[in-house]
Amino acid sequence: MQYIKRTILVRSGLLNQLRLNVRWSSSLKIRDKESIQPERSFKSSDLSVRLAAPHQLQPKPDVSALTFGKYFTDHMLKVFYYESLGGWQAPEITPFENLVLHPAAKVLHYAVELFEGMKAYRGIDGKIRIFRPELNMERMNTSAIRSGLPTFNGNELIKCLNRLISIDQEWVPHSEASSLYIRPTLIGIDPTLGVAASDSALLYVILCPVGTYFKNSSKEVGVSLLADPRYTRAWPGGCGDRKMGSNYAPTIHVQREAAEKGLQQVLWLYGYDNQLTEVGTMNIFMFYLNENGERELVTPPLNGLILPGVTRNSILALGRELKQFKVSERKITMDEVHRLILENRLLELFGAGTACIVSPISFIDYAGQGLHIPTLEQPEPIYKMFLKCLSDIQYGYITDHPWALPID
Amino acid sequence: MQYIKRTILVRSGLLNQLRLNVRWSSSLKIRDKESIQPERSFKSSDLSVRLAAPHQLQPKPDVSALTFGKYFTDHMLKVFYYESLGGWQAPEITPFENLVLHPAAKVLHYAVELFEGMKAYRGIDGKIRIFRPELNMERMNTSAIRSGLPTFNGNELIKCLNRLISIDQEWVPHSEASSLYIRPTLIGIDPTLGVAASDSALLYVILCPVGTYFKNSSKEVGVSLLADPRYTRAWPGGCGDRKMGSNYAPTIHVQREAAEKGLQQVLWLYGYDNQLTEVGTMNIFMFYLNENGERELVTPPLNGLILPGVTRNSILALGRELKQFKVSERKITMDEVHRLILENRLLELFGAGTACIVSPISFIDYAGQGLHIPTLEQPEPIYKMFLKCLSDIQYGYITDHPWALPID
Repeated sequence: MQYIKRTILVRSGLLNQLRLNVRWSSSLKIRDKESIQPERSFKSSDLSVRLAAPHQLQPKPDVSALTFGKYFTDHMLKVFYYESLGGWQAPEITPFENLVLHPAAKVLHYAVELFEGMKAYRGIDGKIRIFRPELNMERMNTSAIRSGLPTFNGNELIKCLNRLISIDQEWVPHSEASSLYIRPTLIGIDPTLGVAASDSALLYVILCPVGTYFKNSSKEVGVSLLADPRYTRAWPGGCGDRKMGSNYAPTIHVQREAAEKGLQQVLWLYGYDNQLTEVGTMNIFMFYLNENGERELVTPPLNGLILPGVTRNSILALGRELKQFKVSERKITMDEVHRLILENRLLELFGAGTACIVSPISFIDYAGQGLHIPTLEQPEPIYKMFLKCLSDIQYGYITDHPWALPID
Repeated sequence: MQYIKRTILVRSGLLNQLRLNVRWSSSLKIRDKESIQPERSFKSSDLSVRLAAPHQLQPKPDVSALTFGKYFTDHMLKVFYYESLGGWQAPEITPFENLVLHPAAKVLHYAVELFEGMKAYRGIDGKIRIFRPELNMERMNTSAIRSGLPTFNGNELIKCLNRLISIDQEWVPHSEASSLYIRPTLIGIDPTLGVAASDSALLYVILCPVGTYFKNSSKEVGVSLLADPRYTRAWPGGCGDRKMGSNYAPTIHVQREAAEKGLQQVLWLYGYDNQLTEVGTMNIFMFYLNENGERELVTPPLNGLILPGVTRNSILALGRELKQFKVSERKITMDEVHRLILENRLLELFGAGTACIVSPISFIDYAGQGLHIPTLEQPEPIYKMFLKCLSDIQYGYITDHPWALPID
């Protein structure tokens, strides 16, 4: 009881601070020497809607049967871009339907593609909210620049998204274990072979009601990881900090190797000193007792090798606001993890991302050596506190929070 | 006259050797711990053909107007793979048509895709030949393994390809400056979000008559390159030695930077010592006078960072067979290139690839410094000899060469 009471007190204090403080929501601070051109954008005021016919409407799956990314709603958003027609065309909401692509479309050969992941939550007050969508828009535009694809005004896409979600609102699950995953995608569709920027593109958004990301785990079990120094996800001078499709295909083979060993995700290492960079599709956090005996939350810095996650950004902001422990962005190496385990100073490791929210890590297979991570054995783990904080904002336990944008 | 005569003599000697020697054509020697499963393949004997209706036939472009990858022939080959239906389905030749894909298809989000590039040539005897297709099949299968896509029996695909080319044979240009580019593509089409191997796939092949790859250059001018150490194409533990779509998207932004500086291609460097790895979509070769005053042909080794090119393999084999100069596979650094230029020991730099064949390099912008490369000033450049040798095999100037497979 004492534990629960204290946690609630901590949470309420935190939430009050959150209510007052909006300065974190500004930007992921992704640098790019080219700039986004918001003035060359499609406009939400041009949005047209073609509703699905009654016979096209799909049955909604049972909330308990939801797996990640399998069921889709009845409508989708599409915006075409043709350089020769002056750029972005009018956005349209249509019934969910297959895409028709030229066999030479650049997306199919040279991976000219990028995506985003966001979620809409049905709150306890019945209102639907999206979590910090402006950060996803910013990241989507920086991915577009790196891919030679056109940029747009993020606010215009958010307005179109609102309309789409509002049309398919019955698909937002009535459950706090579930949400509506939003997948904006931008692909190059020029019908010509040859590695070059695409003069035509399609931005589309599909929605799917989702449960938990990991099939065989619950938040109470913890994720097991394969850390194999032979594989590298990203490298300096590459695109590891952009949400481009090309960052994912190379991981599938390694992910399968992990699965064959009974492990759930890959812990991506980098460099001669085996730095921890990301875990599967998540950013990674470590909570430990530092040299001075203080509790410290640490995550790798945005050095170009890791994705600037929205959940990562939110956890750092919450942690710094709380002032209960030190918060740092710095390099973490496998040697350090190993030493902290031996010295009983490692408290928690967890992953953070939109799809998985906050996932505790319980085991690492590091080049054949099994490392037990005591995340689940902490009496009051901070990963749970973060999960609860984010949930409370997302599901409307606190109202009018600047991070939760209500759908009209 | 003397020069021409000598060149012809060299060429004839070389061709005689080529005729007798088949031992090079075995393999690109790409290693992978997983093996290709040729027994789990589609069969060319199951191939069905649906011909285009007369009104669907496209006019053939003028040979002089051909640019790379813009025009496509009247038919295409498709083979679907569905894990749940036992794997590969029967291959089919259909009219050239758009692909219909689910918006969640893995190829559109996670770049689950790979391709190959081959060419068919119309010889002086009217026969159509493909150049060493078995090497492309081998590489395509190793790319498939790394992408979590299904493998197949390369000979079965070659037989299907023969039929496709035979149906569209009027599209093979009647010109030695042109050829029919063959683009086999394999994409993951599972209609589910989530980064994972795809249980369904589509292998398809499209054909396009092509002229030269570079718009603004001819073989007599030479290619200009941007070498910027800030960008890296591939790295150890990655997929730089597989022809996966994910290797190309990250290059487009850098390629555009080169174009803005008036340069045609990117010279990809790697590591603290700025090793030369690839040039645009080609392998790179250097011809120089070594420390002992010998002429030496050198190209970077197959260390995982570069694509095992079919043209690269062929040039090495030809060079070794000739025994007129030393041939080595070893690291080349920008410091070495710089020093060789200063000491007047650099003779030639050239790129080699299926699309571009052999392309002399005349200029490198290396971190702002302009390096003039004297490739075009050599009285008897070896790049021209290689280009001629390959041409003579491809266009049937020598008959029954083991590297040139005639279409039935």
